[in-house]
Amino acid sequence: MSLRFEHETLPQRVRFGAGEAAAALAEEVERLGGRRVMVLAGRPEAEVAARVTAGLPVVHHHDEVVMHVPVPVAERARAAAAEHDADVLVSVGGGSTTGLAKAVALTTGLPVVAVPTTYAGSEATNVWGLTDDGAKTTGVDPRVLPRAVVYDASLLVSLPVDLAVASGLNAMAHCVDSMWAPRTDPIDAALATEGIRALAAGLPRIVEDPTGVAGHEQSLYGAYLAAVAFSSAGSGLHHKICHVLGGRYDLPHAPTHAVVLPHVLALNGPAAPEAERRIAEAFGSDTALDGLQALRSRLDAPRALRDHGLPEDDLDDAAAAVLPAVPPSNPAPVTIDTLRHLLRQAWEGADPR
Amino acid sequence: MSLRFEHETLPQRVRFGAGEAAAALAEEVERLGGRRVMVLAGRPEAEVAARVTAGLPVVHHHDEVVMHVPVPVAERARAAAAEHDADVLVSVGGGSTTGLAKAVALTTGLPVVAVPTTYAGSEATNVWGLTDDGAKTTGVDPRVLPRAVVYDASLLVSLPVDLAVASGLNAMAHCVDSMWAPRTDPIDAALATEGIRALAAGLPRIVEDPTGVAGHEQSLYGAYLAAVAFSSAGSGLHHKICHVLGGRYDLPHAPTHAVVLPHVLALNGPAAPEAERRIAEAFGSDTALDGLQALRSRLDAPRALRDHGLPEDDLDDAAAAVLPAVPPSNPAPVTIDTLRHLLRQAWEGADPR
Repeated sequence: MSLRFEHETLPQRVRFGAGEAAAALAEEVERLGGRRVMVLAGRPEAEVAARVTAGLPVVHHHDEVVMHVPVPVAERARAAAAEHDADVLVSVGGGSTTGLAKAVALTTGLPVVAVPTTYAGSEATNVWGLTDDGAKTTGVDPRVLPRAVVYDASLLVSLPVDLAVASGLNAMAHCVDSMWAPRTDPIDAALATEGIRALAAGLPRIVEDPTGVAGHEQSLYGAYLAAVAFSSAGSGLHHKICHVLGGRYDLPHAPTHAVVLPHVLALNGPAAPEAERRIAEAFGSDTALDGLQALRSRLDAPRALRDHGLPEDDLDDAAAAVLPAVPPSNPAPVTIDTLRHLLRQAWEGADPR
Repeated sequence: MSLRFEHETLPQRVRFGAGEAAAALAEEVERLGGRRVMVLAGRPEAEVAARVTAGLPVVHHHDEVVMHVPVPVAERARAAAAEHDADVLVSVGGGSTTGLAKAVALTTGLPVVAVPTTYAGSEATNVWGLTDDGAKTTGVDPRVLPRAVVYDASLLVSLPVDLAVASGLNAMAHCVDSMWAPRTDPIDAALATEGIRALAAGLPRIVEDPTGVAGHEQSLYGAYLAAVAFSSAGSGLHHKICHVLGGRYDLPHAPTHAVVLPHVLALNGPAAPEAERRIAEAFGSDTALDGLQALRSRLDAPRALRDHGLPEDDLDDAAAAVLPAVPPSNPAPVTIDTLRHLLRQAWEGADPR
C-alpha cells in the first residue's frame, strides 16, 4: 500500500484537568494578553461560566446563544464585542456556544478560548456555521479555530446520562467514519483509533458512575480526537446517510447516528481491512463490529430508526436520496440495493451483517 | 488514571507521495505566494535539489551547509536571503540543511518548505540550533517550524542501508522515549505508537529492498511522527543517557541510540504498563522488549557500546554523569547502581533484562 496523502495539522493548545478550568482559563487568557474578556455562555451555563471566569478581566457577559447560530444573533454578539472593546472571547458551553464565538471571531479576528460542556467537538475544528432564514451556510477559516481549549470533566458530570451517551456515540461515529472518509489519511486514522479507545473506555464508566469525572474525562479526550480526525478527513458514508435522514425526515441527530453506525461498519469493515484492524484493536475485540455492538449493548443505545420517527414508506425514498451523496472513496461498493438493505436493517433494528 | 496534561499542536502541512516532490513543492510554494525562492541544499544534494526545484521561481541556490549550523554559516545564508530578496526558503537535505533554513527563518521570518532526505525529523519541530565556537545554543520559535514538508521516499532510496537503519532506529528511540518523557501526554503517546508501527514495518523492508520506495515511505512516515511526538514530549531517560555518552566520550550518535534503547525499555517497560502495552501492540509482539529485539535482530543493529569506542574504565564515570540528568518523571526508580548496571549491560552487549 503506497502512502500518498496531504495532511494539515491545525495549531491549538489543549488542556485537560478535572476541576481546573478556572486556573487553566486564567493562564490561557493571560498567554493571549487578554485584558478585556467577553464571555459567551447561554443561560443554562450562566452559573458555571460565572464560576470559571471569576478571575478574568471580564468586560461583558453575553448570554444570547441560539442553536445553529442565526445571523442576527451573531450580529448582536459582534456588536457587543465591538462596543465593549473585547480582546479575547471565552466560550463556555456546547456546540452552539462555541459556534457563536466562532461567528464573532470570523469577522473580528478575536482569539477564542473554548471551555466545552458537551462532547460536540466543535472547539477542535476550523469550521463555522451560520443560519439565515433557516438556510445554513458553513465554511472553513483559520480565524475561527479556538486558540486554546480548556477541558474540565467536572463541568460535564451534571449532563443527563442519556444525553452524554448519545453525544459520546456521535463522537464515536466521527472516529469510525474518519477511517474511510474522502480526505482520510493515516494520521487521521491513528487519531481516530485513539479516540475510539478513549470513548470505549469512557462511555461505559459514565453509565456506571454518571457523576464521577473518570468516565467524562476519557470521553472528552475521545471526543476531542474525534473532532480533530473528522474535520481533517471529512464526511464518510455514515455522515452522508445521517445527514439525509436528519435533513429530509427531521430525525433526531444523536439516535440516528447511534442506530446507523453499526450498519455502515458492517458494510465497510470487510472492505477496509486496515480500518477494520484499527477499530477492532481499539475496542480490544475480535472484529470491529463485535466491539461496537458490545459497547452499544452496555450503553443501551438506540437500535431502530422506526422508534425515532422514520416511516417505513420512506425507506426507498431515503435510499434514493443518499445514493448521489455516497463518497466515491467508500471502501465497499454501494448501489441502491445496498442502501435499501442497510436502511431497512437500521429501521427494523436488525443485527447488522 | 486521571487525565491531566497540556498539549500544543503545531501548524504544519505535510505531504507524502513517492516521486512527487517537484509537483508537491510547486504547489506548496504557490500556496505561500512564493515568487522569489531561495533553495538551500548541500553539494551532495545539489542534483536532487536542482531536479525537485526545477519548476520554481528560484532566485538563489545556497549550498554552504555545515553540521550543527555554525553562526557564520547562518549569517551568510541570511545575507544571501536579503541580497536576493527571497520570499520563500526551500530546504532539500537532512537535519543540517533543515537547520540552516530554520536559522534564516529565525531572523527573517521567511516561510520554509522542507524536503527531507533523511529520517532526522527536524522538519517537524519548532526547535532551532546554532553553534558558536563549538558551543551549541538551541531554542524554540514558531517562526522556524517549516510551513510545509514534502516527503518523497524516492529521494531516500540512494541512502546507504546502514545509514538508513541507524537513522531509522534513532527515530524509533524518539518514539519509545516519548512514552515517558517529562512533558509526555496521551496524544504524544498515540502518535509515537503509530510511529513505532510504521518504523517496525518500514525498516526491515529497507534492508530487504533498499532501492524500493515501500520501506522508505513507511520509515519516513514513522520518522515524521517520531519527531512530532518527541518535540512535544521532551527528552526522556534514553536521550539523557545518549546525550552524556555522545557529549562526554564522543560516541557516534546513531549506534549509541541503537545499543542503549533496549536497555532503557527493559528498565522502564515494567514500570510503565500503559507505555508497555502501547509499544507491544505497535510491534505486534508479546512484550515491548520482544518486539524491539526482534526488529533489531532483523536489522542487524549495533549491540555493544564497547564496539563503538567507550572504554570500560569510563562506565562508572558515565553513570555518575547521567544521574543528575535523570528526569524526575522516569517511571522506574533510577539510582547510581541502576545506571551502572544498565551501562555495563549496554557496554557488554548483554541481553537486557
